[in-house]
Amino acid sequence: MSNCLIAQSGGPTSVINASLSGVISSSIENPNIHTVYGSINGIQGILNHNLINLTSVFADSKDKLEILKTTPSMFLGSCRYKLPEASEDETEYKLIFDILEHKKIKYFFYIGGNDSMDTVLKLSKYAKNNNKDLTVIGIPKTIDNDLFGTDHTPGFGSAAKFVATTLLEISYDTYIYDIPSVTIVEIMGRNAGWLTAAAALARTEHNSSPDLIYLPEVPFSIYDFLNSLKQIQKTKKNIIVAVSEGIKDKDRNYISSCENSLDDCFGHAKLSGTGKTLEHIVSRSLGCKVRSIELNVLQRSAMHIASLQDINEAFLVGAKAVEYAVKGITGKMVTLIRTNNEPYTYIIDYVDIEKVANKEKLIPIKWIAENNGDVSEQLIEYISPLIYGEPNIRYKQGLPVYLDINHLINK
Amino acid sequence: MSNCLIAQSGGPTSVINASLSGVISSSIENPNIHTVYGSINGIQGILNHNLINLTSVFADSKDKLEILKTTPSMFLGSCRYKLPEASEDETEYKLIFDILEHKKIKYFFYIGGNDSMDTVLKLSKYAKNNNKDLTVIGIPKTIDNDLFGTDHTPGFGSAAKFVATTLLEISYDTYIYDIPSVTIVEIMGRNAGWLTAAAALARTEHNSSPDLIYLPEVPFSIYDFLNSLKQIQKTKKNIIVAVSEGIKDKDRNYISSCENSLDDCFGHAKLSGTGKTLEHIVSRSLGCKVRSIELNVLQRSAMHIASLQDINEAFLVGAKAVEYAVKGITGKMVTLIRTNNEPYTYIIDYVDIEKVANKEKLIPIKWIAENNGDVSEQLIEYISPLIYGEPNIRYKQGLPVYLDINHLINK
Repeated sequence: MSNCLIAQSGGPTSVINASLSGVISSSIENPNIHTVYGSINGIQGILNHNLINLTSVFADSKDKLEILKTTPSMFLGSCRYKLPEASEDETEYKLIFDILEHKKIKYFFYIGGNDSMDTVLKLSKYAKNNNKDLTVIGIPKTIDNDLFGTDHTPGFGSAAKFVATTLLEISYDTYIYDIPSVTIVEIMGRNAGWLTAAAALARTEHNSSPDLIYLPEVPFSIYDFLNSLKQIQKTKKNIIVAVSEGIKDKDRNYISSCENSLDDCFGHAKLSGTGKTLEHIVSRSLGCKVRSIELNVLQRSAMHIASLQDINEAFLVGAKAVEYAVKGITGKMVTLIRTNNEPYTYIIDYVDIEKVANKEKLIPIKWIAENNGDVSEQLIEYISPLIYGEPNIRYKQGLPVYLDINHLINK
Repeated sequence: MSNCLIAQSGGPTSVINASLSGVISSSIENPNIHTVYGSINGIQGILNHNLINLTSVFADSKDKLEILKTTPSMFLGSCRYKLPEASEDETEYKLIFDILEHKKIKYFFYIGGNDSMDTVLKLSKYAKNNNKDLTVIGIPKTIDNDLFGTDHTPGFGSAAKFVATTLLEISYDTYIYDIPSVTIVEIMGRNAGWLTAAAALARTEHNSSPDLIYLPEVPFSIYDFLNSLKQIQKTKKNIIVAVSEGIKDKDRNYISSCENSLDDCFGHAKLSGTGKTLEHIVSRSLGCKVRSIELNVLQRSAMHIASLQDINEAFLVGAKAVEYAVKGITGKMVTLIRTNNEPYTYIIDYVDIEKVANKEKLIPIKWIAENNGDVSEQLIEYISPLIYGEPNIRYKQGLPVYLDINHLINK
């Protein structure tokens, strides 16, 4: 009988704890696993001897695992820490494997994005090269949906549902006054525009907005943008623009830094985000009412409007990782493979970690609409099934009930 | 048999259409009322001859009235238009009453805030002074909760639930990294701090944030604020500050304009809101990670997390207005009277419109905590029951189903 260890890394999503809940549930039930450990603040928790016994926290409480499944943020904390190449400096690897061996840990699960998969890659390589008995499995998460080797990432569907729902509600909010307006909504994603593209889902039979969608994959022209606005204003009073925080001009300069763009750019890079920058440009150029809205961290933490599909997938991806690990599968990331789009079906598989680590999957250009400022029907069809279903959240006195590590463990 | 007219005015709330749904339902069922008209863009719809027949839209569709009940924004559009004093200029009054008489309208319902109640006051006065057969009833709404004569306003509970839920989720989002941080959340309310105070509800048995709450009712000192942060940082890593957009210094200057405040204020009034201004001050003074988040229009439009209590009260207040009007009651606003706090019970009544129009109800100083930077237990107990219950929203393909006037009526 061996033990297992779980850690979380990178930025949060609404459902990264659903994956954690999946790993814990599956590990506790697995006859090959004795104790389930959690590392506080990612890989740094091992280096800092900061491991907690999750079996003792959760074994007798299915109830807590259910609440954990619908708790946003990262129950075990996070880190953004990159291991050095073992060939250059072996010190930390020796420390890590000493602790793992001391704790009889044979299975290590790391829930994270493309940077975190670098840790999975390095640890699995080191184990192999040094005949260490450790299987290392990566479990994908990121609202950015920018991981290779998987149809999509857990966390994306919930962020997409928040973006689409909020864009729909903002669109309703803007039509009430009988004056022209432009509302610019800034959405997360420095390089990959998947989440910004999800704004297109807000177009329903009762709502035609957003009217323009700008992704970081294609160069952004302020000139074209203003022209498009003027064109749309001829037939529509209230315009909604969804814009990625990471849009760049043709020379790859961020619009938010806006130094080389146009005369009417104020260049207050430190104060303004992309939305604020565009707000001032539009306000000066068109003179109509302009508002910018930054969705901010709500995109990755609004569990109350998470996608049930996403929660369930995140949980299953975590559970399946345990199954793979005890079979001796190592140096892989668990993946979701879409087997049909309508009705949406999928299977869970795994992929070589080399194909994922440190890489960024952008939207294929063919999925971006030919006229810059929109996305293709294909892209909308790809995202649509991922936002289905409402979360089964417990409420108490009007607020969602979430699980907090400090409440469970006296650190 | 007479007809009735309904209009909406001022800023939107998540539940102002629930009140509209209540007026329409009750009017359609009332034997004294023949046709229910709606005025597009508030009182201006009358002046512009822009009335629509709501009976023909809704009479055969209970279903649509149910969807309207959970649709955010303002179905009939809005305006911010103040009638002149009739003693100074009677022209518009004559126009309005001509149209009302022509359409055989005997009952007029105006859903709005303190400015809109000015319209109710003036029209009811004019009717009385000129022997016009019109009863005018005001129906309260505002996320600001700043109307006199009512325990609270429909719209406030839902905005409060959004603020509390979001603060809870932001608080979870901030604790994951092992570094100190300050997160500043800017909440709507230029003069009244009721909505900012609702941030205190995010404190649950698993969450102690927000740590500081600043209301516009008491002067804000940047010096005291920075001292409080330093004090809290001694025992807590991640600090959450809830701040009203309307906080002012001791000379009543808005902190967001920040001209006379401190050396480390950048004074970018046009670019920055209150949160951004404080972000830069804290960043320069404390040097730790600082983020500001503006909740923006989501506070008034996020129907997906509205309070069921609020939706139901908004509906009933609308329905009751019809009952009062056909009894000949005029120049009044419908009110909510709390009869018990725990368990929460209330009755519906009405109040003289003079007591409400153009006035602003601020938080009583005794309800603000003695140490500036927090609210009292009494204030929390007052707000708590208003956020209970989740809305029964219909979902389609992962998104809430809302009702749009352009879809129902070919304008």
